[in-house]
Order: sequence, then C-alpha cells, then structure tokens
Amino acid sequence: MAEDNTRPPSRRSLLGWGGAGLALGAAAAGGAVAMTRSGDEAVPAGDAGAAVPFHGAHQAGIATAVQDRLHFAAFDVRTDDREEFVQLLKDWTRAAARMTAGHTVGEGAHGGLAEAPPDDTGEALGLKPSRLTLTIGFGPSLFERFDLSGRRPKALVDLPKFPGDNLDKARSGGDLCVQACADDPQVAVHAIRNLARIGFGKVAVRWSQLGFGKTSSTTPDAQTPRNLFGFKDGTRNVSGQDTSALAQHVWVGEKDGPDWMAGGSYLVARRIRMNIETWDRTSLGEQEDVFGRDKGEGAPVGKAKEHDEPFLKAMKPDAHVRLAHPDANDGATLLRRGYSFTDGTDGLGRLDAGLFFLAYQRDVRTGFIPVQRNLARSDALNEYIQHVGSAVFAVPPGVRDKDDWWGRGLFTGEA
Amino acid sequence: MAEDNTRPPSRRSLLGWGGAGLALGAAAAGGAVAMTRSGDEAVPAGDAGAAVPFHGAHQAGIATAVQDRLHFAAFDVRTDDREEFVQLLKDWTRAAARMTAGHTVGEGAHGGLAEAPPDDTGEALGLKPSRLTLTIGFGPSLFERFDLSGRRPKALVDLPKFPGDNLDKARSGGDLCVQACADDPQVAVHAIRNLARIGFGKVAVRWSQLGFGKTSSTTPDAQTPRNLFGFKDGTRNVSGQDTSALAQHVWVGEKDGPDWMAGGSYLVARRIRMNIETWDRTSLGEQEDVFGRDKGEGAPVGKAKEHDEPFLKAMKPDAHVRLAHPDANDGATLLRRGYSFTDGTDGLGRLDAGLFFLAYQRDVRTGFIPVQRNLARSDALNEYIQHVGSAVFAVPPGVRDKDDWWGRGLFTGEA
Ligand code: HEM
Ligand code: HEM
Repeated sequence: MAEDNTRPPSRRSLLGWGGAGLALGAAAAGGAVAMTRSGDEAVPAGDAGAAVPFHGAHQAGIATAVQDRLHFAAFDVRTDDREEFVQLLKDWTRAAARMTAGHTVGEGAHGGLAEAPPDDTGEALGLKPSRLTLTIGFGPSLFERFDLSGRRPKALVDLPKFPGDNLDKARSGGDLCVQACADDPQVAVHAIRNLARIGFGKVAVRWSQLGFGKTSSTTPDAQTPRNLFGFKDGTRNVSGQDTSALAQHVWVGEKDGPDWMAGGSYLVARRIRMNIETWDRTSLGEQEDVFGRDKGEGAPVGKAKEHDEPFLKAMKPDAHVRLAHPDANDGATLLRRGYSFTDGTDGLGRLDAGLFFLAYQRDVRTGFIPVQRNLARSDALNEYIQHVGSAVFAVPPGVRDKDDWWGRGLFTGEA
Repeated sequence: MAEDNTRPPSRRSLLGWGGAGLALGAAAAGGAVAMTRSGDEAVPAGDAGAAVPFHGAHQAGIATAVQDRLHFAAFDVRTDDREEFVQLLKDWTRAAARMTAGHTVGEGAHGGLAEAPPDDTGEALGLKPSRLTLTIGFGPSLFERFDLSGRRPKALVDLPKFPGDNLDKARSGGDLCVQACADDPQVAVHAIRNLARIGFGKVAVRWSQLGFGKTSSTTPDAQTPRNLFGFKDGTRNVSGQDTSALAQHVWVGEKDGPDWMAGGSYLVARRIRMNIETWDRTSLGEQEDVFGRDKGEGAPVGKAKEHDEPFLKAMKPDAHVRLAHPDANDGATLLRRGYSFTDGTDGLGRLDAGLFFLAYQRDVRTGFIPVQRNLARSDALNEYIQHVGSAVFAVPPGVRDKDDWWGRGLFTGEA
C-alpha cells in the first residue's frame, strides 16, 4: 500500500487570467493531471514541491508525511438552507481537488473577464503544489443543524472540562474545520482564504491558526523535529506508513459505525500555550525530568538512543512520557500531527507561543480523553503549559473520485 | 564586490548539551567556521540551508537576497544602567554571530550542567543555518536614554501622522528592533527568543511580527513573489547586487553624518492591514487599475512584460505604481523588504492579514516620507488597506570583526 504516488511538481496554472502574454499551454498542463488514489498511501516528504493526490479511501493530511506549515480554520455555518450548504460542500470539494493539484480555483475563461472578480485570489500563481493537503472535519454543533442529529457518531463526544483548562471560546469549537498543510505557507494560506471566499455568506471563519515547525524540507529526513521547549517531538507516534497501526488506532472501521464515517477519523485540536520564558529559566535537569527524556538525543531515561523503548518506571512518576504512554492509558494511541505557533507577543512582553496540538484517532472516548485525563491530573509539564483552545471534529473518509464530494455520506446517508 | 561567499551548510552544533551519546565532533565543526566578510556582498537565495556571514561593512539582512521567513521584534529598554546595557549589546552580538553561523548560543560545557538552565533553548538543534540574518536598529526613543540625545542622526526623524493612519500604539515604536530573516521559521523564531532570553530584565519585547511570503526556496529564482492581493510585488526595487544604487539610496555615506552611522541605513516598518475580503470581491479590471499593472504577468499598463519600463501617464492618476514611482517623488527610492502576514482572524470573521512593510533607505526625510505622503493622499489602494503599526529605526553599520559589537559607534562615539 505504501507505494510512492507523488506526482512530479507542476506549477500552478495561469488559467483564467486575462493578463498580457499568458496562458494556453497551461490548459494542457491542467488536463495532464491524472486522478490517482490517495490518502492511505504515504507520500514521502522528500520533494517539497510535489502534489499529494486528493482522491482516495481516506482524506489526505492524516497519514500523509507531515508538511512544514499549517493553516487551520474553524468555520461557523451561516445558512439554514440545506441545499445551499450542500452546494457549498460540492464547490469546496472541486476547489480543493484543483488547489491540491497545484491549479487555480477557477477552470477557465470566466475568471479572466475584467468586469468580474477573479475566481482565484492569485497569490499562489507560479508556486508549486507544495504537497498541499486539505482535510475537512464536522464539529458536534453541525449535527444540530439540517436535521443531522440522528447521524452524529457516538465516538464524536463533547470533550469534558479537564483540570487546568483555560479555554477561550473565541478559539474553540466550530461547525466545520479545514486543515491546510503544505510545505509553503503561502500555498496553505491561499487555500483557506479561497475556501472562505467561496463560502462567503454561507460560512464564516470562527477562528484560525497558523503553525510551523515540522521543517521537514530543511531537516534531514530521519531527524525528529523539535518543539519550542527544545525537545524532539514525535519520536513515538503512529507512522503514516504503518497501515496496521492506522487501521487499529486511526481509521474508523466498517463495524464502528456510522456507515458514512467508515474510513474516516476523529480530530482533537488543542491550542496549548507554552510559557517559554519560565521554561528557559529552568535547569536542564528539571527539563529532562519533566519529559522523561534527555534533551540532546531524545533518549528515554536510562537509555542511550532516541528510539530505544522507554522504560517507564525509570522516569519520575509525573514525567510527561510516562503518563502519556499507551501502557499508562489502557493502550490509548494517537496519531499526533501538531505544529508550533508564535502569534506575536501578549500584553506582558512574553511571546504568545506554543503547540497547536492535533491528534487523529479512531474514537475520541478511547483516544484523546483518557490520555488527557491522565496528563491534566498529574503531568509535570502542566507547570509550563496551559490549554487555551479546544475543538473536536468528525473527519469523514476520502473523496473517492470526481463525482464524490466532502460530506456526501453525511448528507445522503450512503456510505 | 558581489562575490558568492555563502558557506557550505553546517548543522547546528550540539555543543553544550549533556545528553546521552552526544558531542565531540561538534567542537571541530564549530572551530571550522571561518569569519568572512559580509553584508554588502549578495548571498544568493539558491541554497536555503547555507550561512550568511555576520561580519562586514554593512549589517546582513538588508542587501542580502530575501529569505523566506521573518520574525521581527521591537524591544523596550528596562534598565537605566548604561554599563549593563552595553554589556547586553556585546552579549547579543556574540550570540548573533554564533546563531547566524548555525551554532547554539552557548560555546561550551557550562550549558550542559544539569543544575543550570541551558544556554540555548534548543529548538534549532540539528537545523541548518537557513541563511539566518540578524539586523539591529535603534529607535528614536533610545536616544532619550543614556545621554545619547546628542548622537541622534538628523535623518532619523519621527514619522509625521499620515492621512488614514490608524496606528495601534501596542504595535508601534520601540527603543530597539531586531529583524530576523531565515529560510526556516523555526530558526528565525529561535534567534529572537534567545535574544529576548539573554536580555531578560534589561529589555522586554514590545511587539513582534511573523512574516512569510518570499518563498524563494520554492519559487523559481527569476520569479517575483506575489503579495496577498495576488500581484507580483518587488518588480521594481533596489537590487541587493546593485552596489551603486545601494550606495546612492540605501547606505548612509561617510559625509552624511553622524560618523557612527556611516555604512548603516534607516528602516521604516509599517504593519499594513489588507482588506482581503473586500479585495476578493473586486473585479479584475479594478484590481489592475489600482496598481497600474496587470495581474497575471505584472506588466505596467500598456506594456507586455513585467520588467518593461512603466509609462506612468498611461496609468490612472491614482494608480499605486504611478504615485510610488521615483519620478513622482523627486527620485525618492526605497529598498523594500516586506513580508506578508496572517495573524488568525479578527473578531468579525475576517482574516487579520496584510503586508508587514519594511523599507531601508539612506535618509527617512527623502525616502519613505515623501513617497508615503503621496500615497496616503491619493493612492487608489487606500480603499483596501489600512496602516495599523509604525516604527522607525537607525540601523548601524556592520560588525567588523570578533572584537566589534552592535552599537559600539553609538556608545563610544567612534566610527
Ligand atoms: C505543549 C504541550 C506538549 C508538549 C510540549 C509535548 C511534548 C512531548 C514530547 C517532547 C514527547 C516525547 C517525544 C515523543 O515521543 O514524541 C511527547 C510524547 C507524547 N505526548 Fe506530548 N506534549 C504535549 C502535549 C501532549 C498532549 C496534550 C497529549 C495528549 C493528550 C500528548 C500526548 C503524547 C503522547 C501519546 C506521547 C508519546 C508517549 C509514548 O508513547 O512514549 N502530549 N510529548
Ligand atoms: C499593502 C500595501 C501595499 C501593497 C499591496 C503594495 C503593492 C505594490 C505592487 C504590487 C507594486 C508593483 C510591483 C513592484 O514594482 O514592486 C508596488 C510598487 C511599489 N510600491 Fe507598493 N504596495 C504597498 C504599500 C507601499 C508603501 C507603503 C510604499 C511606500 C511608502 C510602497 C512603495 C512602492 C514603490 C516605491 C513601488 C515601486 C514603484 C516603481 O518604481 O514602479 N508601497 N507596490
């Protein structure tokens, strides 16, 4: 399954632009993009300019090798008209397929008329696909609209309030989300912005988050990226190439129900503020105790190498890794896919920085909730972090082909 | 002068870390970094991992080929002790020289002690230098401290209030600034954070700004990047390789005074909010009229190619390019080096996005001020933008060698 189906980089086509000396050849380029399957096959991080196939059994952006940058947006629905909303989902799907392939949103001549607004905002013209993936999710509040309450998955529970939570409503929740990941931030920002533009009047951005830090394009392949506390982050994680672990812990199975979610997943997003300044004045020994790993190599306490198996009992009882490990949580296992953020400065001269934590799982009740319960109660890391935003989404399966669309299963009831 | 003195990429050394199975070889790597001259020589954008030399006649980060990402911080001084502040500038200089070469802040064993806080925060360990440049500037308010008022350059004027300005004090001004540019955001953020950490108690971050959008590492070399309005931005600009234009318009000359500024420059920073949503509903024809260039190719009105000479009279009288062109402003010429930003969403569901405008010039009175006066009065673009932050800084000349330090001229009075 893990074949390499990265396509050769193609420049964003200039179709639909009336500018001097443009176009033609681009039409051919557009036509040349074959619709290959996607989602479950791992697309390697090697070529930062390549395209990740949009269609497939699972949505891309989950098992896909992590891209360098993130633009994540949560939307609220602004229409009560079911037809109109379904049409938006179809329009979004078409735009997403085009943008992930490296094209403009619009397909042809109509965007080029001087009297009409362009059908693409243009700032990604000439940029490569940059491994852009667009992944949609449906929040619990969406199921209170459009008579969908009977279709809400049991695994999509509202998160409980955890000790220490200090959630900002303005950075939490949302009827819908779109996760845009790409190796070039301009490509990720362009995609979210064009979806917001297409949705104007029907949906509105509730909150959004930029992230960076995977730096796979500048980091040697085998190297685990570091978080803003300076530690390697992602050492023990579900690999996007490990199809059996994905089937066990990430993808919703055929028997899990509801039918329309088979091949999908559940996403928990947490904005976690990190108290950089306090951390930076903490001794190295204390920092290493907090995680239960050493800072330079990333090895678990008492071991020599990053990828050595952690021996939990050698760690302090409140070490993050000891408490987060599946052995401490009835086997609960998450696919973590978070990004660092730095959003300027707070009013007190401190960096407003942290981790935008994203975790995919087969069931929120046996995934994020038990792990976070354990961490919220006892984690030594809690002295240095604070959860300030939270959201949970049902992430439907992949879009199969050109006739399929995001949310078809949810709205038609068919798998 | 424009020789290629990019050094081969070296990984950030692991010196100063007590982790399991580390170090040694790294010491050799550190020692191998030769101190070559910098600043005025253009370092090409080709190798996104390379190091830009820190020492030279001019500070790097001005004529340097633009890197992909920005982290800009304005600081306020929190000490009245001149000695303490001078020591901080020396410490910063040392740290900046090390970080731009791809090393940790600390030089040796003392960072590795478990009882002490690490002397580097660690998140850039293993990352390449990524063409990091660190450029310091001194704001007008600094000259009211430490008995420096006699040394304030005449060319460093306070900016007048321009029509339409809607400046947020919390995003304006600052006693000092540091511009960090790199091809990897984690490297730029790491640098600012470590300078803030070193300055703890002596300076505090007043505001900071992340930027993206040059995307030189993913964009073909010859291609001009696009701004968030979708237009090519930077077509007509002072080139970092054009030493005569730099001497005429950017570098402070020996006779310009004061002596300590010779080889320096002046920086104007403006946070400009762009009304993305309004723009996106504007017709292509109107968009092109606003700039006086076409959107696809970037050619001036009536011309075929991006780099054709603009014929100003063919443009609408209020076209941005017509009003910003040197011919409309007594020859005023800026080196623009701005970045796009997207800082999430405002309270109204709109993207908080725009241009963080950075312009270097030999004299603010004959550079930014006349151009912005013209634009603020008549620019068609004003319907779609708003200036919300503003600052101006004297950017001293380069640090000559290992014994020199940022601000030596200002504090000692010697050139
Ligand atoms: C700012 C907050 C956090 C930071 C800085 C952080 C950092 C880390 C680090 C450095 C590791 C060790 C390396 C690795 O295996 O990836 C780790 C492991 C882990 N973290 Fe976190 N983490 C944070 C929040 C969370 C949260 C909220 C959860 C889930 C509720 C979580 C779940 C895990 C899991 C499951 C592991 C792997 C444990 C193992 O199997 O060994 N982390 N984290
Ligand atoms: C969000 C605000 C702005 C946007 C979107 C913008 C965009 C552009 C674009 C697309 C061009 C044409 C391409 C080029 O030659 O680079 C341009 C040219 C230029 N802009 Fe701006 N600009 C903005 C603000 C400013 C400001 C505040 C100034 C200075 C006060 C300025 C000064 C210039 C200059 C000097 C030129 C070159 C004119 C020429 O020589 O042809 N711009 N700008």
